[in-house]
Amino acid sequence: MNDALSRLKEIDREIQILGHVSAVLGWDQETYMPERAVEERSDQIAAIQAVLHDKRVSPEIGELLAKLGSTSENPLGETSLPDTDRAFLRVVHRQFMRETKLPKELVMRLAKLTSVGPSRWADARKRDDFPHFAPVLSEILEAVLEVAERLGYEDHPYDALLDDYEPWMRTKKVAQVFGQLQERLVPLVSAIKGSQQVDDSFLMREFPVNVQERFGHQVLAKMGWEYSRGRLDVSAHPFTTTLGADDVRLTTRYDSHNFKSGLFSIVHEAGHGLYELGFSDDIRGTCLANGTSLGIHESQSRTWENIIGRSLPFWRYFYPRLVETNPEYLAQHNLDSFYRAINKVQPSLVRVDADEVTYSLHIILRFNLETRLVRRELSVEDLPEAWREESRKLLGIVPESDATGVLQDIHWSIGAIGYFPTYALGNLYGAQFAAKMRNDIPDLDSALERGEFAVPLEWLRRNIHSHGSALTADELVMKVTGKELDASHFVDYLVKKYRPIYKLTSL
Amino acid sequence: MNDALSRLKEIDREIQILGHVSAVLGWDQETYMPERAVEERSDQIAAIQAVLHDKRVSPEIGELLAKLGSTSENPLGETSLPDTDRAFLRVVHRQFMRETKLPKELVMRLAKLTSVGPSRWADARKRDDFPHFAPVLSEILEAVLEVAERLGYEDHPYDALLDDYEPWMRTKKVAQVFGQLQERLVPLVSAIKGSQQVDDSFLMREFPVNVQERFGHQVLAKMGWEYSRGRLDVSAHPFTTTLGADDVRLTTRYDSHNFKSGLFSIVHEAGHGLYELGFSDDIRGTCLANGTSLGIHESQSRTWENIIGRSLPFWRYFYPRLVETNPEYLAQHNLDSFYRAINKVQPSLVRVDADEVTYSLHIILRFNLETRLVRRELSVEDLPEAWREESRKLLGIVPESDATGVLQDIHWSIGAIGYFPTYALGNLYGAQFAAKMRNDIPDLDSALERGEFAVPLEWLRRNIHSHGSALTADELVMKVTGKELDASHFVDYLVKKYRPIYKLTSL
Repeated sequence: MNDALSRLKEIDREIQILGHVSAVLGWDQETYMPERAVEERSDQIAAIQAVLHDKRVSPEIGELLAKLGSTSENPLGETSLPDTDRAFLRVVHRQFMRETKLPKELVMRLAKLTSVGPSRWADARKRDDFPHFAPVLSEILEAVLEVAERLGYEDHPYDALLDDYEPWMRTKKVAQVFGQLQERLVPLVSAIKGSQQVDDSFLMREFPVNVQERFGHQVLAKMGWEYSRGRLDVSAHPFTTTLGADDVRLTTRYDSHNFKSGLFSIVHEAGHGLYELGFSDDIRGTCLANGTSLGIHESQSRTWENIIGRSLPFWRYFYPRLVETNPEYLAQHNLDSFYRAINKVQPSLVRVDADEVTYSLHIILRFNLETRLVRRELSVEDLPEAWREESRKLLGIVPESDATGVLQDIHWSIGAIGYFPTYALGNLYGAQFAAKMRNDIPDLDSALERGEFAVPLEWLRRNIHSHGSALTADELVMKVTGKELDASHFVDYLVKKYRPIYKLTSL
Repeated sequence: MNDALSRLKEIDREIQILGHVSAVLGWDQETYMPERAVEERSDQIAAIQAVLHDKRVSPEIGELLAKLGSTSENPLGETSLPDTDRAFLRVVHRQFMRETKLPKELVMRLAKLTSVGPSRWADARKRDDFPHFAPVLSEILEAVLEVAERLGYEDHPYDALLDDYEPWMRTKKVAQVFGQLQERLVPLVSAIKGSQQVDDSFLMREFPVNVQERFGHQVLAKMGWEYSRGRLDVSAHPFTTTLGADDVRLTTRYDSHNFKSGLFSIVHEAGHGLYELGFSDDIRGTCLANGTSLGIHESQSRTWENIIGRSLPFWRYFYPRLVETNPEYLAQHNLDSFYRAINKVQPSLVRVDADEVTYSLHIILRFNLETRLVRRELSVEDLPEAWREESRKLLGIVPESDATGVLQDIHWSIGAIGYFPTYALGNLYGAQFAAKMRNDIPDLDSALERGEFAVPLEWLRRNIHSHGSALTADELVMKVTGKELDASHFVDYLVKKYRPIYKLTSL
C-alpha cells in the first residue's frame, strides 16, 4: 500500500509541476510577451495541456486508487491511512473521475466552441446584438449539458457544473443561502437608496500612476507579501496565478483617473495570493496545495479587499500615508469622507463595477437564470428578457441595452456555467470566517489601526490557508466556525458597517 | 514518402514547441522569477526536458528517417526531395544520432557532474584553489571523453565534442585557421603595445542607469529591432533566447560606472536576436529555424557589436545623440577621442574583458589546451602551468593567480569542452561576411553615418539569417563569399581599423 501511495504521489507531483509550467506560459502571455508571439504561445500551452491530459487520465492512476481503496462511494480510501493521505486520495479520485468520464470528442468540441465563443461574444457586445451570440451560446449550453450528463448528478444537472468550481457544493444549498441573502439584501439596498447619497467624485481626480504604484507596493508589503516568493506586475485584467510552491504572481492595472481601481485590485489579488502562499509544509507541492474551492478562494480575496481593506481601522493606518504620497489629491478631504467614498453603495447595471452590498444580487440574478437554463425551463433566446426581469426584481434597475445586460460577462462564452455563484459564496464564507476571527481576536481593530496586518494574516493562515484542499469547503466552514454556511453573518456585517455610513435607522 | 515527411515534421514541431516552453522557463528564471522559486523551477525544467528527451529518441523518428533514405552516409535522404526538405532531414538525422548514441547512464552521470561542477568551480575560483576543482574536472573530462567515443569521430576525439556546438566542423580545420590567425595577430598586438596608449578612463565616470537604458533602446530600435516580436530586459549576465518564432528576448545589465558594458551587450545580443528573427518563412517553426552553428551565431553578434557597433560611421550617427542624452558625461571629449576609447586594445588576463584584437588569442589558448587534454597529452593537474605558458606565449602576460588564469571560465564545469572555438570562429566568419557585404554595398559607411541600419540588416537577413540551419556553416560561407573560411579577412579588417587608431606604421 505504501508503494502504491508513493507512486501516486509521484504521478501527482509530475501533474502539479506541469500545471505550474502551463501557468508560467500564461503569466508571461498576460504580462511581458511581445504581441506577435500570441500565435505560437497558444500552441505551447496546448502542447503542455496535451501532455498533462495524458498524465491525468493514465489508467495507472485508476489502478493505484483501487489498490488504496479509494472508490466513488469512499473516495478517502483505506481508513488506516493518515488523514492527509486520505484527503489526498479524495482529491486525486475526484479529478481522475472528472477527467476520465468525458469522451475526447466532447472535450474537443467544447474546446473548439469556447475558443470561438469569446470573440463572438465580444462582437455581439460591441454591436449590442444578442442574436449574434445566441447560436454559439446555444451550442455551448448543449455541450455543457452533455458534460453534466456524463459527469452525473443526483438532483439537478447544475450540481455537476457547480462542482467543477465549488467541489461537493450542491445547487439546493446555494439556492437556500442565496434565498436567505436576497431576503435581507433587497430591503438593505432599498434603505440605502432612500438615504443621503455619498459623494465619491473626488476619487476620480488625476493620481499619477507611478505614485499609485509605489503606494500599492507599500500596502502589499505591509499586508505581509513575501517578495522572495512572489511578484506584482501589470496586466490588462488583474489576476493571481501560481507558478510554483514559492512563486505566486499578482497583477493589477492602474487608471490615472481611478485610484481605487488599481489599489483595491492589488488588495483583492493579494488575498488570493496569500492563500496560495499559506499552504502548510506537509502538503507542499501536492494537489492538496491548491485552494479547496473558488468560493473559499474568493472569501480570502474579499476578506482582504472589503472586510479589512475597506474598513475604517485599515484606513486609520493608511490614510495619513496615502496623503503623504500625494498631498494634493486629498487636500480637501478627511479620513471620514474618504472612508465613505470608498464605500459608496449604488445599484448599477454592471457586476464588475458593483459595490460590496449590491454585488451579490448580480450573482443571484445569474444563478437564477443559469439553473433555469440547464433545466431547459428557459431558452437561450428568452435570456435577454429574463435578465431584465430579474434585474428589475433584484436591483430595481433595468438595462437599456443587452451590452450592459445579458452580454456583460465573458463567462458563458468560455463555457463557464456554474462559476458565478462562487463570487457570492466568497462573500458569505468570508463574513462567516471574519465573525469567528473577530471573536478570537477581540482587539483586531486596534491591531489594524496600528498596521499590524500579521494579526489577521496569521489567523487566516492557521485556520484557512494551511489546509489547502485537505478539507472541503463544507468541512472547513464547520471546523473553523462550528456551523454550516449561513448568509446571516454577511448581512449582519453589512448592516453593522453601512448603518453609520448611510445613517440608517430602520435596520 | 510524403506521409513519412509530414509525420516527421509533426514530431519536429512538437519538439521545437517544447524547446520553446523550456526557454520560457529559463528566461523567466533569469529575469523576473522571485528568488525562492528557484528550487521548483529546476524541477519544472527537468520535467520538460524529460518529455523532450522521450520525444527526441522516439524510435518512430528512426523509422521515418529510414523511409526517407536519410542515413549516416547520406543524411540528406532521397535526392527527389526539395532542397529544404533534404536539409531538414540532415538536421533531424544528426540530432537523432547524437541523442540515441548516448546511453542514459552516461547522460545522467554527466548531468550530475555538471550540476555539481559550477558550484565547485565557483568555490575554487573564489579561494584561488585549482586542486579543489581538479577532481571534479577530471571526472567531467572522463565522462566527456566517453561521450566522444560513443558519438564516434574519424581523426581526433575533439571532433566529436566540437561538433556539438559547431556542426560538421573539424579540429584540423580549426587548427589551420587558428594557426593563420595567431601568426598575424601576435605581431599586431605587439605593434599596438609599442604605440602611444589610448585613454578610456573617462568612460568609467558615472552615467545614470535610466539614461543608459533609454539610449540603449534608442540604439536597439534604430538597429531594426521589432518590439512586437521581442523584448529587452535586465539580467545578471546578458543573453539572448528564443521563446517562439515571433518571440526573441534579449537581456543586458547596466553598470552606472561603465557605460560601454550595458550598451555593447545590447548591440551584441541584438546581433544574435536579429539572426533568430530573420529565418525565412518556409522554415518557420521547424528545426531549420535555428542558428546553423554557434560560430555563425557569434558572427552575427560580433558583426553588430564590433564591425558595425564600434565603427566610426556608427558613432558619427549616434555620438551626437549620446551627447544629447547626457551632455555632462562627454563634455570634455569629442567623437574622435570617444571612438578611440571604445576601441582601446590592451592584452589582459580575462577573456570576457578582452578587446576585439586580443580576444581571439584567449580562445586559441583554450583550444590548444583542450585538444591536448582530450588526447591525454596534458593532464588536468598540469593545466595551471600549461595555462601560464600559453598565456605568456600568446598574450605576453602571465596570470599571478589561477583565479584570473585557468579558473576564470565556467565552461569546463558544465562540461562544455569544445565550445570556446566558436567565439573566435565568430570573429572569422563575421569578418569574411563583412568583407563581402562591403563589396556588395560600396556606400555602406555612408548608410551607417545616416543611421540607415536597415542597409546592413537586409544584407545579413538575405545572405545569412534567412537560411537558418538549411545550410551548414561551411556551405553558408562558400555560398556567401565563394571561398572557404579563412582568417585573413579578420586580420585585414583589424589592421585597417587599428592602423589609424594606434598610428601603426610597421604593418
